[in-house]
Amino acid sequence: MTTEFRTLAAPETVRETIADLNLGGGVEHVDLREARDRVLAKRVDAAIDVPGFDRAAMDGYAVQASDTVRAGEVDPAVLDLAGTVHAGEKPAVTVEPGTCVEISTGAVMPPGADAVVVVERTNEINGDGDADNDDTAIEIRTAVAPSENVMLAGADIAAGARALGPGTRLTPREIGLLSALGVDEVPVRARPRVGIISTGDELVPPGEPLDSERGEIYDVNTTTIAAGVEAAGGDPVVYPHAGDDFEAMERLLRQAADDCDLVVSSGSTSASAVDVIYRVIEERGELLLHGVAVKPGKPMVVGRIDQSGSDDDETAAEPSDTAQSAYIGLPGYPVSALTIFRVFVAPAIRAAAGQPEPATATVDGELIAQQRHDEGRLRLLSVALIEDADGSPLVYPVDKGSGATTSLVDADGVVAIDPDTDYLAAGESVTVQLFDPAVRPPSLLAVGEADPALAELLDQLDRPRSLPVGSREGLRRLRDGIPDLAVVAGPTDRAVDAVELGGWSREWGLLVKKGNPEGVDGLADLVDDDIDLANRDRDSGLRASFDAELDTLADARGVDGRDLTAAINGYEATVSGVESPARRVADGRTAVGLGLRATADRHDLGFVSIGTQAVRLLGNPDREEKPAIDAVRNALETLPTVCSSLAGYQFE
Amino acid sequence: MTTEFRTLAAPETVRETIADLNLGGGVEHVDLREARDRVLAKRVDAAIDVPGFDRAAMDGYAVQASDTVRAGEVDPAVLDLAGTVHAGEKPAVTVEPGTCVEISTGAVMPPGADAVVVVERTNEINGDGDADNDDTAIEIRTAVAPSENVMLAGADIAAGARALGPGTRLTPREIGLLSALGVDEVPVRARPRVGIISTGDELVPPGEPLDSERGEIYDVNTTTIAAGVEAAGGDPVVYPHAGDDFEAMERLLRQAADDCDLVVSSGSTSASAVDVIYRVIEERGELLLHGVAVKPGKPMVVGRIDQSGSDDDETAAEPSDTAQSAYIGLPGYPVSALTIFRVFVAPAIRAAAGQPEPATATVDGELIAQQRHDEGRLRLLSVALIEDADGSPLVYPVDKGSGATTSLVDADGVVAIDPDTDYLAAGESVTVQLFDPAVRPPSLLAVGEADPALAELLDQLDRPRSLPVGSREGLRRLRDGIPDLAVVAGPTDRAVDAVELGGWSREWGLLVKKGNPEGVDGLADLVDDDIDLANRDRDSGLRASFDAELDTLADARGVDGRDLTAAINGYEATVSGVESPARRVADGRTAVGLGLRATADRHDLGFVSIGTQAVRLLGNPDREEKPAIDAVRNALETLPTVCSSLAGYQFE
Repeated sequence: MTTEFRTLAAPETVRETIADLNLGGGVEHVDLREARDRVLAKRVDAAIDVPGFDRAAMDGYAVQASDTVRAGEVDPAVLDLAGTVHAGEKPAVTVEPGTCVEISTGAVMPPGADAVVVVERTNEINGDGDADNDDTAIEIRTAVAPSENVMLAGADIAAGARALGPGTRLTPREIGLLSALGVDEVPVRARPRVGIISTGDELVPPGEPLDSERGEIYDVNTTTIAAGVEAAGGDPVVYPHAGDDFEAMERLLRQAADDCDLVVSSGSTSASAVDVIYRVIEERGELLLHGVAVKPGKPMVVGRIDQSGSDDDETAAEPSDTAQSAYIGLPGYPVSALTIFRVFVAPAIRAAAGQPEPATATVDGELIAQQRHDEGRLRLLSVALIEDADGSPLVYPVDKGSGATTSLVDADGVVAIDPDTDYLAAGESVTVQLFDPAVRPPSLLAVGEADPALAELLDQLDRPRSLPVGSREGLRRLRDGIPDLAVVAGPTDRAVDAVELGGWSREWGLLVKKGNPEGVDGLADLVDDDIDLANRDRDSGLRASFDAELDTLADARGVDGRDLTAAINGYEATVSGVESPARRVADGRTAVGLGLRATADRHDLGFVSIGTQAVRLLGNPDREEKPAIDAVRNALETLPTVCSSLAGYQFE
Repeated sequence: MTTEFRTLAAPETVRETIADLNLGGGVEHVDLREARDRVLAKRVDAAIDVPGFDRAAMDGYAVQASDTVRAGEVDPAVLDLAGTVHAGEKPAVTVEPGTCVEISTGAVMPPGADAVVVVERTNEINGDGDADNDDTAIEIRTAVAPSENVMLAGADIAAGARALGPGTRLTPREIGLLSALGVDEVPVRARPRVGIISTGDELVPPGEPLDSERGEIYDVNTTTIAAGVEAAGGDPVVYPHAGDDFEAMERLLRQAADDCDLVVSSGSTSASAVDVIYRVIEERGELLLHGVAVKPGKPMVVGRIDQSGSDDDETAAEPSDTAQSAYIGLPGYPVSALTIFRVFVAPAIRAAAGQPEPATATVDGELIAQQRHDEGRLRLLSVALIEDADGSPLVYPVDKGSGATTSLVDADGVVAIDPDTDYLAAGESVTVQLFDPAVRPPSLLAVGEADPALAELLDQLDRPRSLPVGSREGLRRLRDGIPDLAVVAGPTDRAVDAVELGGWSREWGLLVKKGNPEGVDGLADLVDDDIDLANRDRDSGLRASFDAELDTLADARGVDGRDLTAAINGYEATVSGVESPARRVADGRTAVGLGLRATADRHDLGFVSIGTQAVRLLGNPDREEKPAIDAVRNALETLPTVCSSLAGYQFE
């Protein structure tokens, strides 16, 4: 890697540098029906009066107010009925002095009339009993003032009035007001076009086949950053993957610069790609900043790329701003890339799009696990939320290493830790910057053993979070007070204060190829024969039962346990994941795997039964009152059905 | 109107009735790139291990751990270098006992190797100084355990593990995890299709010409409800307007029922349309509920409409559920329609779409104006928010009558008042259900005189709210402590404690046709000649200056002011809106209008100057510390420019 980070820029410098980039944000006109969540680019004044006519506000009679001046219950005025106006009709009659017109709510006031007398304060009187007779007259039993019971033209909003200001975000309500004004096309802030470039020969788009033997992995950043751009109000443009050579990369970056206001790339584990982009920016653009004093996110690049138009003009003293597009290079690991995008890039896209900052971006909560910090730079610590029994937010760190994609969803936000803070104590109050304003704590946090029956139970709950960290680690976290629930299988070596919620048992043993071609009979064969095993990690409950059986075998043979396990091929090279050993057996990587009868069934493998182990759900005693614990108890009622679909399962 | 509300349903009954409707919500498969904000219909388990191969976690040498057992600084192990593996390459060599392979971070572990020794704990030693020479050997100065510095296949997420549960909303982070799993298409909850029907012959779609003489108004509910359906996660289908006769309405409703899961109509002021829909539901469907004890929103209908398939089967004992679509009839006034939609319909659409309820839907604040309540039903009082100087939310009622479309944007949410509460005192704490979780209080609330220069100043502020209620009403509200700012023009009859922020002056007078064909000279002509005037309302500052001049004229003539004004045609029939009189003069409805020279200029009218009046910005003394007041002061710096573009304006 030839790139160096001589001086890491302070976060504030990065923010200012990005704010100085021109990310576009002009004006475009969109159909009102497509305008939801867009932002007005200009003030909209009312071009018409609403209502557009003097409108009867009540059912009754349209009159000249001056005809009613001395009218009352005792001495009513009597007016000739000259006709009728309904809503949606053009009045065909005029109200002359001494006459009135029957009118319904919403109807146009007839010429000559300036007020409405409500029907309840009138009587119809006519000589011959025929209401349509010209002789019909109306007794008016109250005086009305001019404009009484009339909604004058423009009374809701008057033509020329400021209706909505620039920067207004258009929700259904603003769209309603614009509709009332007859507006069907609105000037809105253009969405900044953001080109997204994926680098690294080992990246494969989701959906395409993956060659793991070549070390290929799926491209996470392209879809993630594209979704993030969209959420921030930008218009993502995804470019196909380019080769890592200088010419191809330069062509791609220049094309993206021509098309877009901002080009975003994310590094890859292939150092050569990073170097090539870095060189393109230096030679065909402007490098403004390289390296930022934030963890994660150190290898960030901010700069500009020349557009093609400025290509040949080597004599120009300085490239003009219009001939360049902004460029931001993100780190390669998905969690780092998205964190840096969220903290530094998304706010700039929102600003260019005129979108307001999310209203509820932070939550204050109590840290329930201490956190050391010995970095010399700002740390954006990934954390997750869980609710206490009383609903108050608790916060715990999620630290799986930047390479883990699961921490994308296992965390809810970040806590910013200053370079000069070196310790956060449990119980301290911290402010969490949420990844998304819609983030809410999960209803339940379950940690511990992975299990197919557990997965079915979790599907019945509302937004649970489950972390398959193994039984031993699950118990440890329960002791630290973090989860609502620990899922524990097999023998355990520590007692933790907990509430037993229920459980089931599952049959475990050795997974072998279908038909058991190696003729594996039991654990002794692993020790005595040259058979490769896919073992599980030490935190798993399956491993605990396996080790307990091996101890029994060692005792029976009068040998040391360590000598026994040293004789098993693959005993130390463990895999995580309840199905991983099965997959290794299925594809021939190992002859035997540690696993469940249910897993053997699912993968159509042979199975050598060794025993059954209990799986127990242990509740956090401080959180028994949480509604989710009741939900777990209800879900446990479905165990008979769940267990009947899984080979080797028994409910308790 | 033949429909009656015999028994109004309780809100809870309405909710339950709507919850029992079947609003669809099946499963559809969408491209991952289109999946943002959709909701997973099914659990997604990992189909692959991530990473898919045992991956070097550090730069160094891949070894067999057993070759390093006793290695240390003093007595290093020496291994032959057998080759090199980079990231993105398929290893070409195997690590045999006694050998090692140079490896870079992210690369595939070569066969035979089970651990990585970091480069910092090694030395290269070779006989002839040529690193590529076969003789090259590596000194290993530390022992490593199996799997050390290796990220095993599946360590991030193991194949078979529960990745995301049903009901998960897909934000960029979840999209990232799905990408890592290679998923490019996801099963999501289908969006309920919601048909939207507009009724009433007087409604015209925005963008089309309006015939105000016929009492036509723009259709607000169609676009508003469509946007609301979309925001709730539904798929709106807008139907063209149908005639109000039974056959046409029945055809339209049946067509919508065939196409959609739910049909929503909103009433109109034309009673006949309401009656026709009501009859169609009764004869070709099922009426479940009519009338709800909520204000606004009484005339709500819930039912089902038969789809065409069930048309001819008159003998069926009961229509089956699958042959019907849900129907909800909303009130006609836009604010009522949107309130009822938001309270009762949107939650049902969200539930069918699997979308979570918005997280931050309420704000608690202090009511700053008392509110009487004498209804026998639940009142959903429209309220608006404003921030106190310390940022704490204050709440005031917005009560313009349900017919006003401006209250769509002048309010921020509703406060639910129980039928048995009859009074809310100022200072009481209330909970506001926000219209949208993204709603925030405006930075500034300005009320009072409408003015073109003010509109320009407001455009420079971030999300101000301005209510053109006139100078007198503005002062009254400032005295009640509601706005941050009152805008007052002309003479005022009350003193209010306020902070003078600045102001300008504007020339006012009589707007006449271009060229002044009637030869109007001044106010006396209005009194003495038979000339129609478009006057302004009593709250406007223009009217105050006008009345003051008329008083002067009455004094000069030695007559009573009332006799003078009685002689002016149109003196009592006022219009609101600074431009409304100008429009009446321009289209010939009146000969003269009260207005500004700037308005005459803008509308190319003649102008008879009467005087100039001061416009003053009066700050709320309790809110002087608000940042928006500084922003107003900054905006006032631009007055010279603003005033120079407006005829008859002078800055102070």
